[in-house]
Amino acid sequence: MRILGVDPGTGICGFGVISVPKKGPTILLDSGVIATPPHTPLPERLLDIFNSLNDIIREDKPDCISIEKLFFMQNITTGISVAEARGVVLLVAAKHDLPIFEYSPNEIKKAMTGYGHADKKQMQEMVRLHLKLDDIIKPDDASDAVAAAIVHSMFSRNGDIEHETRY
Amino acid sequence: MRILGVDPGTGICGFGVISVPKKGPTILLDSGVIATPPHTPLPERLLDIFNSLNDIIREDKPDCISIEKLFFMQNITTGISVAEARGVVLLVAAKHDLPIFEYSPNEIKKAMTGYGHADKKQMQEMVRLHLKLDDIIKPDDASDAVAAAIVHSMFSRNGDIEHETRY
Repeated sequence: MRILGVDPGTGICGFGVISVPKKGPTILLDSGVIATPPHTPLPERLLDIFNSLNDIIREDKPDCISIEKLFFMQNITTGISVAEARGVVLLVAAKHDLPIFEYSPNEIKKAMTGYGHADKKQMQEMVRLHLKLDDIIKPDDASDAVAAAIVHSMFSRNGDIEHETRY
Repeated sequence: MRILGVDPGTGICGFGVISVPKKGPTILLDSGVIATPPHTPLPERLLDIFNSLNDIIREDKPDCISIEKLFFMQNITTGISVAEARGVVLLVAAKHDLPIFEYSPNEIKKAMTGYGHADKKQMQEMVRLHLKLDDIIKPDDASDAVAAAIVHSMFSRNGDIEHETRY
């Protein structure tokens, strides 16, 4: 199974694709960020995210998408723009007929580190260990996207459907 | 000039297209709602909005899009889903290279009725009068979308650029 993890944001949108064989270790196929220069108009940023995700899906052929759930907003302006980017990710999933699963930041941290309040550094290190990489994945946003993909691989072993985005 | 007004929402997304000649009255070309059955998964709703808006733009050939600004949220869950739909509308604008303008609910009400706190009924009636229609536009969401388009026609007479969506 191949899983595309996405960490949505309009300034920087992280992504990562992992391959989870029935036996043997999980392999990192691709990771990076979709980044637009500062002051790029928001509609253009969203179009860039849309086009880039379409390309990634065509190239890496994931079977599903895993994304961090947005369930509260510390900052209303940032929250709105993250939700706008999320809308584009959900749209891309539907366009390619891929199921999309959502996990709260807390679920992702807990599944990766055993601790719901792990910091960025601990998270990056656990992603590195899980994939047996020499170095952590940079930047943060790419590592976070890969973490979302890894967490879905853990939950899906148990036939996870409760995290599927429905309404 | 042709203006596509959109009232974004994931359950129901209103739209309306007006033609604003240099001289003479504004004409309503098209209006309606993009509605999906209850319990349709969110990604499918967003895809439906995306496909429908693409069709409307190809058919009605608007020069720009006008949309209600989301700047506070009464209900966080509804707010997130409206922002997700908004993201798709902004994406469609960029895809067709159409400028998109945003007006706050207050600006729209004030421009249409002279009163920033007009109710739904007053708004529908003012939309009807502005377009010299026999009946109000139904449902509310379609009338609201047409109102956003009319308000942009008013502001754009003064060479409005401050309402263009940028960052």
